[in-house]
Amino acid sequence: MTPLYLDDLSPGQRFTSASLAIDAEAIKAFARQFDPQPFHLDEEAAAASLFGGLAASGWHTAALTMRPLTDGGAPIAGGVIGAGGEIAWPRPTRPGDVLTVFSEVIEVKPSKSRPDRGMVTLRSETRNQRGEAVQVLTARLVVPRRS
Amino acid sequence: MTPLYLDDLSPGQRFTSASLAIDAEAIKAFARQFDPQPFHLDEEAAAASLFGGLAASGWHTAALTMRPLTDGGAPIAGGVIGAGGEIAWPRPTRPGDVLTVFSEVIEVKPSKSRPDRGMVTLRSETRNQRGEAVQVLTARLVVPRRS
Repeated sequence: MTPLYLDDLSPGQRFTSASLAIDAEAIKAFARQFDPQPFHLDEEAAAASLFGGLAASGWHTAALTMRPLTDGGAPIAGGVIGAGGEIAWPRPTRPGDVLTVFSEVIEVKPSKSRPDRGMVTLRSETRNQRGEAVQVLTARLVVPRRS
Repeated sequence: MTPLYLDDLSPGQRFTSASLAIDAEAIKAFARQFDPQPFHLDEEAAAASLFGGLAASGWHTAALTMRPLTDGGAPIAGGVIGAGGEIAWPRPTRPGDVLTVFSEVIEVKPSKSRPDRGMVTLRSETRNQRGEAVQVLTARLVVPRRS
C-alpha cells in the first residue's frame, strides 16, 4: 500500500489490518516479562479472578495491535508515531483469539509551527474473531506532509 | 507493602516505585516482536528519523511501567487491573534510561451496581533518571472493596 502523507488523509478514511493469532503461551510469556500478575500467568488463578479465565495484559493487546498497523493497517508515511491517546479495553484478549485492527481517521490537523508535519487522530478498534472489541485506541499521530 | 482496598484509598495518596533500567538490546527486542519500525530497531535509521536516535516503542514504555507498579509501586488489593485511560509520551525512552513510576490517586468511586468494587483513577508518571516524564498514564482501575 502506498504510504499516505498528511495531505492524503481525511476524516472518515478507513483501513483494515491483516489478522494475528494469540495463544496462552504468548500471553504468559509477555506477562512473565512485563506484567506478572496471576490472572495473566496461570489458568487456575485467572479462573478465580475478576477475569474468570486467562487474560492477556492490556499492554500485550496494545503491543499486539502495532504490527498489524505498521504492516499496512495504517499506511502512514514515516511510520506510526504516537504522541499519546485514549485507550480502553472493553474485554480481555483470550488464548486462541485472532485479532484484526479496524482504523478510521477522525481528524487531520496541520501544525502551525512545523510546516513539515501535522497531527492525525486515528481511532483503531482491535477486534477478536467474534467481532468484539478488545481494545479501542484513539491515538494522536505525528504525520509528515509531502515536501 | 499492605495491599490497599478501595476503602483505603483517597485522592492525593502518592506512591513511588522501584527503578528499572533499559538498554538498546531490550528496545530492539521489543520492537522486533511487536513494533518493527526502523527508529525502534536501528541506531542509524533512528538518527535520521523524527526521534533523532534510538527510541523505545511507546508500548514498550507502557509495558515496562507495569512491573514497577505491580511490585509495590501501586499496592492495590487484587492487582493493577486497568479498564482504560489516557496515555501520553512527552519524550521517548532511550537506551540507558532508568525509569521510576510516580503515582497519585486522583479519584475514588465506589460502584453503584457492584457493592464489592469501585473505580480508582490513578495518574502514573514514568520518569527517567533526569526526572523527565517519558510517559503520563491516567488509568481507570478496578479495585475491590473490603468484604
